[in-house]
Amino acid sequence: MKRIPIVTNVLEYNQSVAQEIRRTLSSRTLVLNLLSSPGAGKTTLIERTIAALKDELRFAVVEGDLTTTLDADRVAAYEVPVVQINTAGGCHLEARQVMAALSQLALKDVDVLIIENVGNLVCPTAFDLGEDAKVVVTSLTEGDDKPLKYPGAFVAAQVIVINKLDLAPYLPVSLAKLRAAIATIHPHAPVIALSCTTGVGFDAWLDWIREAVRTKHAKV
Amino acid sequence: MKRIPIVTNVLEYNQSVAQEIRRTLSSRTLVLNLLSSPGAGKTTLIERTIAALKDELRFAVVEGDLTTTLDADRVAAYEVPVVQINTAGGCHLEARQVMAALSQLALKDVDVLIIENVGNLVCPTAFDLGEDAKVVVTSLTEGDDKPLKYPGAFVAAQVIVINKLDLAPYLPVSLAKLRAAIATIHPHAPVIALSCTTGVGFDAWLDWIREAVRTKHAKV
Repeated sequence: MKRIPIVTNVLEYNQSVAQEIRRTLSSRTLVLNLLSSPGAGKTTLIERTIAALKDELRFAVVEGDLTTTLDADRVAAYEVPVVQINTAGGCHLEARQVMAALSQLALKDVDVLIIENVGNLVCPTAFDLGEDAKVVVTSLTEGDDKPLKYPGAFVAAQVIVINKLDLAPYLPVSLAKLRAAIATIHPHAPVIALSCTTGVGFDAWLDWIREAVRTKHAKV
Repeated sequence: MKRIPIVTNVLEYNQSVAQEIRRTLSSRTLVLNLLSSPGAGKTTLIERTIAALKDELRFAVVEGDLTTTLDADRVAAYEVPVVQINTAGGCHLEARQVMAALSQLALKDVDVLIIENVGNLVCPTAFDLGEDAKVVVTSLTEGDDKPLKYPGAFVAAQVIVINKLDLAPYLPVSLAKLRAAIATIHPHAPVIALSCTTGVGFDAWLDWIREAVRTKHAKV
């Protein structure tokens, strides 16, 4: 009888590659892993963030999508290094894909590496990509009950961004209820409500990034 | 050396249970499998549909969520039989879960069984739940590029509902571009644009259901 090899636990293997990513990157590079439902506004958040901070910090971006380079094309217009990972149907990014993408980027002197995960509030949560922080973006249009219904992502987040605040007057959704739902699931998580369209609340997000970069540098 | 059992292909097993569901249900029961991103409005669509058609058709609902009974509680208020499946973190419903749920429902004389899948535009696509039609709900707030970025769900759909049409004036999103993106991915799919909030476009959706019920009955 043939010997059947035992496949190492997928998550354990992913974790070991995530640690390799941490060793590969400069200890001064802040790595953010952006998670959300499809269409919550991750790419727009990245665009606005780079536009606001590009004279202050050096960015690089890894875009994860099932298919297409639509998001990478948008980000590349801001003249930052960007690599697209197509998962060919895969529902989340894995560390080995990010590791391969890093070889395509000039990583020296990058202050902030942003990884935009596949739009999916469930599967990406379990896969460490070598990040310093998971950023969960939830759009106000998705309703005020999503933290209760998809707790895994919200528990894993180091910061939670509530996007599309400009639409509040037109939605049957309560910002206070959404904040209360987040507080139930992850009581001490910083929560930043903003609109990428109007810019309201955006300064708090930029300050969060600046502070995260400072904290990272202080550890070196 | 111990013999290691070979696990049957997950999708093949799921397919066999889906066929069992088809044999279990009355051949007169239309089964719809609702797929979307979190917060696209599946539950609200179900609520409005039942409110509009409950004197005409008999409904039953299976709710799929990672956790909580929030959606099932909302639907139960319309006095239709409803069962909640909690996937305990699982990113999609599988036929075996639906089969187990059916034993909790009085299925005799149900005209339309609606299965609300976990909010996820990727993973549920591959899992047949014994449905007659996959209904993909996409909210205008998610942007006009989602069919291109998440083609699997749109290809698999028998009908595509564009929801939250009432928000069009406030969004940097083009309904024409969204329709064009759908046409690229699935040229002949029926597309119904509507708002569950204002009711605009809703009659076309109700007519689609009535016609699907008639078609199902005609096959008996």
